[in-house]
Amino acid sequence: MMRLVRTQGQLRPLSKVSSTVLQRPVASSPRQFPTVFRNYSTTPNKPAAPSAPSPPSPPSPPKRSRLRSAGRALLYIAVGVPVIGTAAWYTYDALEAKGDVLHQKRPRRVIGGPKNLVMTHGCSGSVLKAEEIHQNDPRQRLVILGSGWGAVSVINQLDPKKFHVTVVSPTNYFLFTPLLPSATVGTLELRSLIEPIRRLLSRLGGYYVEGRADDVDFENQLVEVSGIHDSEGRKFYVPYDKLVIAVGSESMTHGVEGLEHCNFLKSITDARDIRKRVMENFEKASLPTTTDEERRQLLSFVVCGGGPTGVEFAAELYDFLNEDLVGYFPAIPPEEVQVNIIQSAGHILNTYDLKISEMTESKFKRENINVITNSRVVKVNPTSVVYKDKETGKEAEVPFGVCLWSTGVGMTPLVKSLVAKLPHGSQSNKHAIETDGYMRVIGTPEGTVYAIGDCATIPQPHFVDRVMTLLQESDTNNDNVLSYDEFRTLADRIIAKHSVLKVFLSHLDETFNKYDKDHNGTLDLDEIRAFLIDAEKQCTALPATAQVANQQGIFVGKRINILHSIENDPMAVSQLPQFAYKHLGSLAYIGGNEAVLDMGKGLVYGGIGSEYLWRSVYFSEQVSVRTRLLLLMDWSKRALFGRDISKF
Amino acid sequence: MMRLVRTQGQLRPLSKVSSTVLQRPVASSPRQFPTVFRNYSTTPNKPAAPSAPSPPSPPSPPKRSRLRSAGRALLYIAVGVPVIGTAAWYTYDALEAKGDVLHQKRPRRVIGGPKNLVMTHGCSGSVLKAEEIHQNDPRQRLVILGSGWGAVSVINQLDPKKFHVTVVSPTNYFLFTPLLPSATVGTLELRSLIEPIRRLLSRLGGYYVEGRADDVDFENQLVEVSGIHDSEGRKFYVPYDKLVIAVGSESMTHGVEGLEHCNFLKSITDARDIRKRVMENFEKASLPTTTDEERRQLLSFVVCGGGPTGVEFAAELYDFLNEDLVGYFPAIPPEEVQVNIIQSAGHILNTYDLKISEMTESKFKRENINVITNSRVVKVNPTSVVYKDKETGKEAEVPFGVCLWSTGVGMTPLVKSLVAKLPHGSQSNKHAIETDGYMRVIGTPEGTVYAIGDCATIPQPHFVDRVMTLLQESDTNNDNVLSYDEFRTLADRIIAKHSVLKVFLSHLDETFNKYDKDHNGTLDLDEIRAFLIDAEKQCTALPATAQVANQQGIFVGKRINILHSIENDPMAVSQLPQFAYKHLGSLAYIGGNEAVLDMGKGLVYGGIGSEYLWRSVYFSEQVSVRTRLLLLMDWSKRALFGRDISKF
Repeated sequence: MMRLVRTQGQLRPLSKVSSTVLQRPVASSPRQFPTVFRNYSTTPNKPAAPSAPSPPSPPSPPKRSRLRSAGRALLYIAVGVPVIGTAAWYTYDALEAKGDVLHQKRPRRVIGGPKNLVMTHGCSGSVLKAEEIHQNDPRQRLVILGSGWGAVSVINQLDPKKFHVTVVSPTNYFLFTPLLPSATVGTLELRSLIEPIRRLLSRLGGYYVEGRADDVDFENQLVEVSGIHDSEGRKFYVPYDKLVIAVGSESMTHGVEGLEHCNFLKSITDARDIRKRVMENFEKASLPTTTDEERRQLLSFVVCGGGPTGVEFAAELYDFLNEDLVGYFPAIPPEEVQVNIIQSAGHILNTYDLKISEMTESKFKRENINVITNSRVVKVNPTSVVYKDKETGKEAEVPFGVCLWSTGVGMTPLVKSLVAKLPHGSQSNKHAIETDGYMRVIGTPEGTVYAIGDCATIPQPHFVDRVMTLLQESDTNNDNVLSYDEFRTLADRIIAKHSVLKVFLSHLDETFNKYDKDHNGTLDLDEIRAFLIDAEKQCTALPATAQVANQQGIFVGKRINILHSIENDPMAVSQLPQFAYKHLGSLAYIGGNEAVLDMGKGLVYGGIGSEYLWRSVYFSEQVSVRTRLLLLMDWSKRALFGRDISKF
Repeated sequence: MMRLVRTQGQLRPLSKVSSTVLQRPVASSPRQFPTVFRNYSTTPNKPAAPSAPSPPSPPSPPKRSRLRSAGRALLYIAVGVPVIGTAAWYTYDALEAKGDVLHQKRPRRVIGGPKNLVMTHGCSGSVLKAEEIHQNDPRQRLVILGSGWGAVSVINQLDPKKFHVTVVSPTNYFLFTPLLPSATVGTLELRSLIEPIRRLLSRLGGYYVEGRADDVDFENQLVEVSGIHDSEGRKFYVPYDKLVIAVGSESMTHGVEGLEHCNFLKSITDARDIRKRVMENFEKASLPTTTDEERRQLLSFVVCGGGPTGVEFAAELYDFLNEDLVGYFPAIPPEEVQVNIIQSAGHILNTYDLKISEMTESKFKRENINVITNSRVVKVNPTSVVYKDKETGKEAEVPFGVCLWSTGVGMTPLVKSLVAKLPHGSQSNKHAIETDGYMRVIGTPEGTVYAIGDCATIPQPHFVDRVMTLLQESDTNNDNVLSYDEFRTLADRIIAKHSVLKVFLSHLDETFNKYDKDHNGTLDLDEIRAFLIDAEKQCTALPATAQVANQQGIFVGKRINILHSIENDPMAVSQLPQFAYKHLGSLAYIGGNEAVLDMGKGLVYGGIGSEYLWRSVYFSEQVSVRTRLLLLMDWSKRALFGRDISKF
């Protein structure tokens, strides 16, 4: 069938146009970039700037005047370096403005696919034969959905000669999420946490499309995308040879009513909204017309969820209130400012070592941060949260001026619909897309679709069976019940085989009591079964952290780089390793220049210098030189001048 | 009459409460501030940090080992300075976290005034006798409306021992408006342009109230204020002994329809909206579903108004497009990006020297910025602007993706209502509040109310009569008409007496042609009269610039500082000088690392280095050390990494 294409308003047969469409040399860098400074990347193989040739060494001076000439040399250096440096800088800065680069024209608009939609240019999808594509661009078309940790980790691994990369995401920047709580209160600037995707892609000569993936046609290898601001709802196709789904997750609602009154903390906009609202509340609370009751409500901050995000936000908020706000708001009685954390488990930071949870709790207690544990949020009213004590069953209410909802993650609409449309039986998880050990989505044509990060999970078949063997070994007295000591042995053995369960098995005495329903001090078979089922779930779900997404992204990036070379050698392909998560430790900032670090195996650290350790880790994990420099500037700014208290 | 006050929910006679209310020692710094670093200010009398005592000089070494010990000393310095510096820095940074400062309680809520409203605490207004107030705080209550250039210039002049200062403004920060066009495209960060009012007030132990002044009761000396986020619309009084009105202006609409489709550039929010919209348009234009026509519309930027703001915005926008955006958007044909300026006068920057206008126009022409002069905007449609050529009368339409409206300033609602309520005959200007030569509002109780900045104007009585004398002197041949040469003599003489008219009389040949209605090469009496009436208007209205507001603020701040000491000496008071505007020159950034400077008297500069001159001027005018440092950081960031292209 001959398809028609519209190019500059004319209809022409596609076969004639396509060659024009595709002749654009996408393989080479599509545009010169302003300066070499702009074209930086984080890959290790980037050539370093050529160092200037060292000047010929001056003839050695006669010995007697050594002192004087040393002094003179010193003088030259002291004067010369700043002068030359300044001159060089100004010259660079002045020359750095570019001449006019406005020229070039290229054809666009290719139409096709089952729904006859416009295709992204440079890729013309299933309407062209593979040979025709490869005539013009020998690279595989790799499409990445998302621009978070997983996506960027893939991008940074890719070989530009092998892939024609297109990223589809509603946000055109990567956000360094672990520092978002800091940026929310102004310890850091929001712009210091982001790196434009287009810059990260420039190394690959890749494309970015601002849109939301609505659907994937796995058979025809097409992603259906709609522009996020298109009032007409026009859709288009992005064709792929390989697809990486890295769309992340949404905040989990747990079916609680009234979440529209809460703030979330997943995006730049969320952070900005919270900051503005905190400032607004302080200003409102300072007005003479505000009643005592209103003021107490405005100055009460509630965090629902005692995980790392919730704890770090509470800590940063407390720092902000204590170090900056209270001092500048003389009309506000400081004791009326209250930070509360509502946590459903028995401890905050319950995925960390128990020592860390206790360290954090005692610090928060000293700072009058109100930690409410073992409590489930029942309902959120416009200005108060209702929660229920899990033990006593009693309900209580705490007023709020700002309420942060940060209690776990759920599936995005795209992930829900993809899981539903995949062949029956291939997907059974309710929280994410199931992949095999190579991060390939189960149920899709082999090797074409990967899923990584929060939206992906690796099921563990036969987990219970395998653990049963360990169980028998641990039951040393063969009485078919486990004492606490036997349970501890079991836990150690499980962790040795499934390191991902370390977190689940960190608060061992609590876990034991939880499953020992009849409180007889031993776990019988039913109780052990309940424990194993929960353990399996935990084993399947790697934590929804940047660390996991990052490792999976690196894994997939490296894998497809290698696959590209050995695709025709099934033997070599079969020898590629599966993904194995390596937990490098957990961190959390807990306020007042203190952080906690859980390095695993009971190795924990807090106290003096911990904040610098925490900063160093995040500093080293930045995706660009630019954001590193910005972080340094921000930390200095905060230390010198405090945080900004302007309301916007 | 006994008035009742509510304190902590109880009603008690005011006389008993008031002493409690007022016992809070407002005169001394109301709160300790975290560290001395936070408590900075721009006043020259701030004590410098004590310098460390210099270490005792080491004994002079024997001569023979001089070289070696010099080397060793150098080594010590090279190693010691960074080590000690780093250690000191970390110690400071670590200690800088404050202990818990949450304590203190104070009574609030005093009710009174003609409308029986709540009064700001610390001030109890006309319900208390003056002696009662002064028993507790001998300082005059100075209230400043606004937080812009005028207000901040007053604040920085004040003596903390003499005034109890309260600032009322809807924004809790000062914005460095001249650099707003730069920040709009990300050359600078928005937060680098602002300084929180509460920080500026901390030197004075002053108060800030986030609210909008709705009315002023000049008789009872009360400002009626409403909180800007109060859904119940509750109002309160801020009592004053002296009032400074510095509320600025609003964008002038000139009665044009459809301005809701335009962006403005007066606030942080405006700048942020524009930046987001520019990025949104580029992303939209890159989508394959976008038609050619849509793309051209999205990538067309229209600036209505060729004054400094419009020109600088166009220049910065062009830099942003050319240096950053076009390179990262390979799907966008650069020649489709178009910047247009529509200007009603014959030249852009028409208040500058003609040489500057021409220099800017030729630069814009080289850069393909489309300058449309002599044209009036008739109407703004959702995606296009209709304008009319003033000479030919023809209408034309230009599509836009973003349209900036920047064509002069008008009165805020408060200023309108104040002008209307002042005694009949005291106010006659339609654009601002009329003041006397001391910036005191005409028609208010003497010496209590000042107005400065965009919202104020000083009328020039008998201007025409006075100029008539000059006119007779200039008409050298006594033919009662002015030739162009005579007109030039007249203009020089007028400028000598009224330096403010320099700007009005800068494009002299154009002005002559404009008033020479019958085009006979001379101005007859009617034509001269028309010219003089316009000149009088110009003379009355100082330009609505930061420079004017700044000088007026300094004038008023100094005046009331002095008045406080000599109030009882009418002789000394009468000898205080009137305000005299001193035009220090005009600046504008015109893009591509080039700025133009009009230093007056035909002294103009553009070209190499002009941008650094331009930067230096604004650097030196910053209100704090903090913003200076931030500016330096931002300029370096932009030069190294370019502007951010993330959309938020």
